[in-house]
Amino acid sequence: MSLMTEARLGTSAGSESKGAGARNPTYESDFVLDEHLLLESGRTLAGVTLHYAVYGRLNAARDNAVLVCHALSGSAQVGAWWPEVFAAGALLDLDRDCVICVNLLGSCYGSTGPGSVDPETGQVYGPDFPLVSIRDNVRAQARLLDSLGIRRLRLALGGSIGGMQALEWAILFPERVERAFIIAVAPVSAMGLALNHVQRQAIQQDPEWASGRYLPQKPPQRGLALARQIGMLSYKSAGLFDERFGRNPNRNGEDPWSLDDQGGGLIGGRFDIAGYLDHQGQRFIDRFDANAYLAILRTMDTWDPLHGHSSSAEAYGRISASLIFVGISSDWLFPPESVREFAAAIRAAGARAEYREMASSHGHDAFLAEQAELVRLLQ
Amino acid sequence: MSLMTEARLGTSAGSESKGAGARNPTYESDFVLDEHLLLESGRTLAGVTLHYAVYGRLNAARDNAVLVCHALSGSAQVGAWWPEVFAAGALLDLDRDCVICVNLLGSCYGSTGPGSVDPETGQVYGPDFPLVSIRDNVRAQARLLDSLGIRRLRLALGGSIGGMQALEWAILFPERVERAFIIAVAPVSAMGLALNHVQRQAIQQDPEWASGRYLPQKPPQRGLALARQIGMLSYKSAGLFDERFGRNPNRNGEDPWSLDDQGGGLIGGRFDIAGYLDHQGQRFIDRFDANAYLAILRTMDTWDPLHGHSSSAEAYGRISASLIFVGISSDWLFPPESVREFAAAIRAAGARAEYREMASSHGHDAFLAEQAELVRLLQ
Repeated sequence: MSLMTEARLGTSAGSESKGAGARNPTYESDFVLDEHLLLESGRTLAGVTLHYAVYGRLNAARDNAVLVCHALSGSAQVGAWWPEVFAAGALLDLDRDCVICVNLLGSCYGSTGPGSVDPETGQVYGPDFPLVSIRDNVRAQARLLDSLGIRRLRLALGGSIGGMQALEWAILFPERVERAFIIAVAPVSAMGLALNHVQRQAIQQDPEWASGRYLPQKPPQRGLALARQIGMLSYKSAGLFDERFGRNPNRNGEDPWSLDDQGGGLIGGRFDIAGYLDHQGQRFIDRFDANAYLAILRTMDTWDPLHGHSSSAEAYGRISASLIFVGISSDWLFPPESVREFAAAIRAAGARAEYREMASSHGHDAFLAEQAELVRLLQ
Repeated sequence: MSLMTEARLGTSAGSESKGAGARNPTYESDFVLDEHLLLESGRTLAGVTLHYAVYGRLNAARDNAVLVCHALSGSAQVGAWWPEVFAAGALLDLDRDCVICVNLLGSCYGSTGPGSVDPETGQVYGPDFPLVSIRDNVRAQARLLDSLGIRRLRLALGGSIGGMQALEWAILFPERVERAFIIAVAPVSAMGLALNHVQRQAIQQDPEWASGRYLPQKPPQRGLALARQIGMLSYKSAGLFDERFGRNPNRNGEDPWSLDDQGGGLIGGRFDIAGYLDHQGQRFIDRFDANAYLAILRTMDTWDPLHGHSSSAEAYGRISASLIFVGISSDWLFPPESVREFAAAIRAAGARAEYREMASSHGHDAFLAEQAELVRLLQ
């Protein structure tokens, strides 16, 4: 399914497919922490708001909670971007489960981020928004669950940055997580850091970025669109691109061999893949903020589950949840070998960590693009 | 060798390693075509100059000529960027061979390019420089060889865009090529087109690019540096990056977990891979021109050896040279499977086309970074 819900091979790494099957939350709300959030970096964040969505209802025993964690550009509305995990007989059953999804700190979908006002200065954070780690997010999410009276999660799960959170939950709060599904993720590799580095520069080099102090009505659109395009290269696979676009000229009739067009002989008409990427970039700037993108790239880059622990054995040995790791065969951002090795390292520390591999040509994005397949693998 | 001739894992896709073993040409010269070059696009290019370098001497029979074709950012000085192919017992022997290397049209190393003056207008071409195809280059090179009295090449060879030229020589002028080595190349895939598309935009989005009409003293340096960085991701491999840089902080002491630095909390200190990429970008802008980069990307993108031929059998069936294709095991810009399939398609048309695979962790760049290994494979 899913692919055809969008014009030209949509989705990606955490986003927006709102096709058939999308479902609305039971409710959405904001939770405001009653004290400063002490960040791993040593800084504090005041007046922290977490925007979250709830699907289904907490039962009387409060033991039916599931936490879904979203990826880079996702939102709390998991029913919109991951509808098939709710399908009949799939992973989550809203007659049984109470599903919670919390927007990441740093994002632009309701939780505190660079676009929020710093209560201590009365100014928008902009580039002064601090580094908020995966662990900081998980600690804040735990306070939210406390407020909801949820002590223990039946399941925590997510793909990509969402998987980082799910694993960190299992390490930080072993007594609160029964199972975790950690999909298409491992600590970011050097190539992953490199990809994020060039995306970051695409935004910073846009004059409209203005060192992060742009006005909301004048955002660095070209830079953000380019960053998104670069990101897309890492979310998809070469095989999928060959199959869908090949070396075809752009479907709007542009001719890559033409002489006269925007940019003169140096640029030329676009190939179909270029038209697709441009389209994706344009769609993205309508829904995402450049500083939020930068903030979450940094959250992603700096994730090290061993940070502050004395050893792998100590960190992973804490885990009591049963873990399932999923690698995607064509993922080159988080290659399946890396996910497999990551799971093996955690298993070596004594945790229960199973590895499963999803055969897909969709690359990293397969956890969004081929949800039915993912569901089958995790059932 | 080679790696250590540069500060931090140097070389790449056509460039500049001037370490031990570099050798000077016997002479360098400019050849000016005595008539307009009729381009495949139908346009003509006036006053075409080819800058070329010659190593060794043509023998009396004029049957010892070897043509080396360079890649994107290379120059005619093959003795500087590919020194090990000249080593004792290696591929080329200057007591026997006369080696010629011609700078690509569109480049900034002496041949006519966007920085040249159009004799018909008296103005610098800039963005009006036309699309010059691989075949256009080969036709111009053939005129140069005519002028030197060279009817037949003992060998034509090159990596990446250089390999495109070597193959096109064998197709266009079957009677003039005895052997060809075609290294790490196939028609550019959709992922390759995508990578070039984002590099192109990095340059175009730099305000200094000024639609291609920048002054030489005010070039789009940031955009070109970013394009180069993106290119580097495709020239190297994830495995090499992990091995050399991993998740280490930048070796200059920057801290990715730091709070205060250029760009505020959204940016942070760099990882080592980011410092490396920035360094490569900076080195590149000192030696290359943005419009030349754009021109050659387009030459690369549009290469289709079947263009204008009625079929694969007709195009490749023309070839009389004996061909050796080389794929590099860790190349993801031109994956070894693609090179192998390309060779198979050519063999299926009746040409002699052998495929050999180079085991290397260096990615696409291995033909420059591991020259000794390449030489061994081709001997």
